[in-house]
Parts: sequence; C-alpha cells; structure tokens
Amino acid sequence: LSEPSKVSAATLRRIHEAIRVTGFVPNALAGALASQRSMLVSALVPSISNIVYASMIASFNERMRARGYQILLSETGFDPGDEEAFIATHLSRRPDAVLLTGIHHSAQARRMLLAVDIPVVEVWDISTTPIDICVGFSHVEAGRAAADFAVEAGYRRAACVSAGDERARRRQQAFSERFEERSGHVVSAAAFNEPASLANGRSGLSRLLEEQGFEGGVVFCSADLLA
Amino acid sequence: LSEPSKVSAATLRRIHEAIRVTGFVPNALAGALASQRSMLVSALVPSISNIVYASMIASFNERMRARGYQILLSETGFDPGDEEAFIATHLSRRPDAVLLTGIHHSAQARRMLLAVDIPVVEVWDISTTPIDICVGFSHVEAGRAAADFAVEAGYRRAACVSAGDERARRRQQAFSERFEERSGHVVSAAAFNEPASLANGRSGLSRLLEEQGFEGGVVFCSADLLA
Repeated sequence: LSEPSKVSAATLRRIHEAIRVTGFVPNALAGALASQRSMLVSALVPSISNIVYASMIASFNERMRARGYQILLSETGFDPGDEEAFIATHLSRRPDAVLLTGIHHSAQARRMLLAVDIPVVEVWDISTTPIDICVGFSHVEAGRAAADFAVEAGYRRAACVSAGDERARRRQQAFSERFEERSGHVVSAAAFNEPASLANGRSGLSRLLEEQGFEGGVVFCSADLLA
Repeated sequence: LSEPSKVSAATLRRIHEAIRVTGFVPNALAGALASQRSMLVSALVPSISNIVYASMIASFNERMRARGYQILLSETGFDPGDEEAFIATHLSRRPDAVLLTGIHHSAQARRMLLAVDIPVVEVWDISTTPIDICVGFSHVEAGRAAADFAVEAGYRRAACVSAGDERARRRQQAFSERFEERSGHVVSAAAFNEPASLANGRSGLSRLLEEQGFEGGVVFCSADLLA
C-alpha cells in the first residue's frame, strides 16, 4: 500500500477491493511514529458548551480540516493546574501544533510547551512574553473602553455582574476603575466564583437590585451569558 | 521509566527531576501501538456550535475524562458521505470506542465500523438495526407527541419551521401528519436546506406570516435555535 508501483495494476485493484469489502483502515499511529507527523492539532478551551469557545472551535476545526488536520479537543476549566495535566496528555500524543486559551499557564506547562518544537498559539488574551505565538486582545483595554462608552452615553451610576475566571475579573476591574475615575461614583459589584451562566446573570441582577439597592444606571456583565 | 524497580531510589529521583526540568513528555503513540489501547474516544457530531450537541459533548467529555480517556472530536455536518471520510480518519487513530450522531451512515462507514472490534454507540435516534449500541429517542414519536399536545391545547391551525437535516424533517413530517389527521387542517411549512439558525427561524416565521398568510395558530419548530 505504501509502494503501489511494486505490484501490477490488477493486483492493486484486487487489494483495494479487498480493503473496501472488509472495511480495513490503515493504522495512523504507526504512520505518525514513523513520519513524526501526527496530523493532530490540540485545542484546549475552558468550556466547550460556552458559545464563544464553541464558535471559535467550530471555525478553527473547519480551517484545520481543510488542511488535513484533526482536532484533539479538551475542556480544561479555568484552573491552570488542571490545564497542565491536559497539556501533558495532549503532548504525549505528539500533536503537530497546540492551541491554548489564555496566557496564564503553570510553570511546568510552559516548560513542556517550550521543550516541544511545534507551533504553540495562545488566544483570547495578549502578552509580551508569549510561549510562541499569541493572537488576542487586551481585557484591560476592553473594560476601560466599555467604561468610557458608558460615561459618554451619560450614565452616572454603574454596577458589574462578573464570572469567576481571571479574564472576567480583569475586565470587570478595569471597567470599575475607569468608571469610578471618570464619574466619581463607586461601582457596585456582584461577582461569582463560577463560570458565567444565565442563572448567575439573573441572580447577580437581583442581588444588585434587591440587596444593594442599585437603580438608574448601567450594568456591565463580564460575558454574554450573564447579560 | 516503564520498570522503575530496576534502578535505585536516588537514580529514579534524579531521572524524575531531569524530566521535570526539561519538560519531557512520554510518547503515547508508541504506547498505544504496543498496548493496542489508545485511550482515545472518537466523537462525531454534525455541529459543534449548536448548543444541543455542544452540551452533549461537554457531559460526554467529562465522563470520559474521569475514566482517563481523551476525546477526538470532529464536526461532520449532516451528510453521510462526509461522515464516512471522518470515520475512516478516526478509525485510523485506533480509538478505544466511537460515538456517532444518528443512525444513517454510508454502507462503507458501516463496514469499517463493523470491522473494528470496539464499542460503537449511536445516539440521537433509535434503530432496530444498530451497528453496536444505540441510545436515543424516536423523532417520529416526538413529532406526533408535539402534535397531540397542540391539538389538546385547543389549537386548530399549525405551521412548521424546519431545518434541512434528515432528523428535523422526520419530526416535522410526523407533526404535520398527526396534526392534519386530528384537526382536519393542512399544516403550513417553511423548510430550509440548511442547519437551524436564529436567522432561519426569523425568516421562516416571516415567510409564514407574510407569504403564506398564516395566523392564529401554533408554530412547530424543528429546533430550539429556530424557535
């Protein structure tokens, strides 16, 4: 099969027919070991069912597939310690590249990623010290821009509903600082130690309204799901 | 590393320290070839960004991970021909099990899956002739139950907005037949040849209202996204 020129056309035809009928599939593990290319790309995201990561993975998958790669996907949650364990198992499969969410990884995870000679892409944040390649945006600038927008739209009071992950916290903090600086008013906050969900959004809003007496202002949510 | 009892405790400690510092990760491809177990489970779903499949994959991933398996995920679309190509690449990685969406697979896909001696689970439908294991529900009965519910709630007129996949069509057809049978009214329909989306839902409803003059009844949608 790897050197079809060595057999006659008729024999080759019979071989292919036998393969078709029996449903034989070549072993890609052996091929990957021999060629040092697995045609696998690892993708690690905090949450598969969150639409922002799911949409990213759907596009990423489509582009990679068009180039013959398959995606080995893991849902890591938001803890760098959990992520480290996933990175180790992913690298043990010898992927041809790795996609990581965020820039905060454990020291051991960074060491493992630096030791493999493959492209490592960090997305969803920006960094001056990427492991390899980083494509993303600034969460601090995003929070500040939202605060500027709210102040310029005439809002004098603001509150935040925020999920428990590190990026959400940075956006929320940047929003609050900038809004307080420009409006002179303290920003109320309802923060959760869990990922964003519709239920957290509802309970965050009712905390603001009922417990903190928030009214007549703008509410900054750390994610679509909360809003 | 595979026989730690052959070296002294001090040597083993030095080896482990060297591994930690250099970020060395063992090669799982070689291990999988030798042991005939890849600890990979293949999951094939039509769409990753559709919340019904994303939620299923999130739970499936969590359960499999708790048992030490990693998920090799592919988005197949709704065409059995495309699915066949994915099944071949997945099987070439020697997964320990396969999860498939739906019961309609190409003849060659069935042959390949029957030839491998691993669990194959079909979900999201039911069949009297599963490849191996089938866990799902009846789309025809679901459509009929919705029609019964609508008739019993007093609706005399009904319309359908339906996506282009085969399961959606079966639900819609079962709904229409049962509703027509029990109400004596013809069910209007806006059907798309694409997957369900919010945009299709909006345009389906406006087709029903503006072009077909539908009013005063119940609208059956083939998916949450359309509704």
